[in-house]
Amino acid sequence: MISESQIIQRYFSAFGRGDSVTLGIGDDAAALRLPPGHELVVSTDTQVAGRHFFPDALPEDVGYRVIAAAASDLAAMAGAPVGMTLALTLPEVDELWLHSFSQGVGDAATALKLPLVGGDLTRGPLTISVTVMGSVPAQSLVCRDGAVAGDLLVVTGTLGDAACALAMLEGQLPDRSNCREIDEAFFNTRFYRPSPRFEWIDWLREHAHACIDISDGLLMDATRMAEASGVGLRINPEALPLSPNTHRQGEQQAIEWALTGGDDYELAIAVPPTCDIPQGMTVVGEFTVTTELQCPGVDVSQLGFDHFSGEN
Amino acid sequence: MISESQIIQRYFSAFGRGDSVTLGIGDDAAALRLPPGHELVVSTDTQVAGRHFFPDALPEDVGYRVIAAAASDLAAMAGAPVGMTLALTLPEVDELWLHSFSQGVGDAATALKLPLVGGDLTRGPLTISVTVMGSVPAQSLVCRDGAVAGDLLVVTGTLGDAACALAMLEGQLPDRSNCREIDEAFFNTRFYRPSPRFEWIDWLREHAHACIDISDGLLMDATRMAEASGVGLRINPEALPLSPNTHRQGEQQAIEWALTGGDDYELAIAVPPTCDIPQGMTVVGEFTVTTELQCPGVDVSQLGFDHFSGEN
Repeated sequence: MISESQIIQRYFSAFGRGDSVTLGIGDDAAALRLPPGHELVVSTDTQVAGRHFFPDALPEDVGYRVIAAAASDLAAMAGAPVGMTLALTLPEVDELWLHSFSQGVGDAATALKLPLVGGDLTRGPLTISVTVMGSVPAQSLVCRDGAVAGDLLVVTGTLGDAACALAMLEGQLPDRSNCREIDEAFFNTRFYRPSPRFEWIDWLREHAHACIDISDGLLMDATRMAEASGVGLRINPEALPLSPNTHRQGEQQAIEWALTGGDDYELAIAVPPTCDIPQGMTVVGEFTVTTELQCPGVDVSQLGFDHFSGEN
Repeated sequence: MISESQIIQRYFSAFGRGDSVTLGIGDDAAALRLPPGHELVVSTDTQVAGRHFFPDALPEDVGYRVIAAAASDLAAMAGAPVGMTLALTLPEVDELWLHSFSQGVGDAATALKLPLVGGDLTRGPLTISVTVMGSVPAQSLVCRDGAVAGDLLVVTGTLGDAACALAMLEGQLPDRSNCREIDEAFFNTRFYRPSPRFEWIDWLREHAHACIDISDGLLMDATRMAEASGVGLRINPEALPLSPNTHRQGEQQAIEWALTGGDDYELAIAVPPTCDIPQGMTVVGEFTVTTELQCPGVDVSQLGFDHFSGEN
């Protein structure tokens, strides 16, 4: 019977290298260096089998996605990746599963520059909890509550792809194979291998008044930003950046996915109207004085957004 | 139906204050300050209902214990507490449970100076994962692999109390009410409210060659320290510090608990033989050149320690 320390050694000890790592896996705790004058940014995300991922998902994809989803929270604060810990609760030691899962963890650790420095392995119902740590220069933290009326609402990338991917994975996309073919590789990547937008953290530190990552859909997350900032929000649905693949499933559907679909892990950013918007970002609305949500042409009340919810 | 953010607001938002906290619960991530020139020390611990705690344990005690157990890993590295995140997976929203559990979390946050700055709340089988963060001056980290032959093995506090408490909680203590009465309050405290030994971190930084916290019993944990350091170990069972309460259950039994019982969360420390041992610590053995475990008068092979295990 393989022991806990053997599992850690065999499957998880190889992903702990990084400039920030003073001490990795194997002691009571790990040690990490932050750049001088920087603060620690930290976020924890849990995913439970059957709730946050399909039981038949590739363990490799599950591993990658849970880390990318957590890391997205660092990017949204303008934090640079430093390291992570992984709390893995497993019903049984299944080496095939561990092999695949750990590959996804390793891929994410490498791609996102988040060395795996510690964690815990316990027996129980499949639950994965990741704590990601980043660094940001003191005073450069970008919070969700800094938007002011007149700021533009800007998003990175394209929206709605993960929601379209979810519909595909659940077999709910209409089968119109010729005119609306499905690029499975594209959607699998958008759903299982999201890209935390670390490439924008320097830009955020310089230009953003506020930022949030889009994990629950643009309407929900941008509303959280507006509420925390004490301002209102007008979103222009015609401006939403849609990928060709998602747009191909029908424009109205694509817009609804872009507004309400979760799991894109793009960033929603408040910037002053004088700001130059770089390529890769799209202005999709603006923050307003009146604390309400407007989305012309879309019945937000039908989407559950008839008023500000008090959630943030 | 109470929402996730309302639960967090109602039960967990009050424990986030601390000098180190730049930004607490409520944004995508939290932010923490470390003292200049310090490194981050981080450890993650998971506890699963029915495995790590009794299903009928007071939620308040469960909350306290999971945090104290995790925090003990910081103390063992000579890390000062900075903050923590809590990943809580719950089968259902039970406000009575949440009320009690959060009290334990709050008690621990206050007692251990570990502000709760973030986390995640998910639906699923009861699982609690805590990530604790601390700080240590660069170069002052105390690892488990620094013991050298000739060093003394020193422990804090008394050993075996948590194992005796476990026997009590499982109803396995002999009922000899007059001569061997059981101080339930003492044992409940030792089991459910362990004390991470932060009071010794300055001393550790100054004197210790190596340190580990005793979570799996002195034999197991001190062996891990010896193995990681590439030295052997001789433990003197007659020197083990026993509390009067545990000793009262029979000396041989108490010694066995002290050697093999877990959950004491005391520290096992390697110090040079020239070191003055302060009150509150006890010399219980020494590190040797030959890489073997000796424990005169005790059949360690019967306890599963016939040879160094390769686990560390």
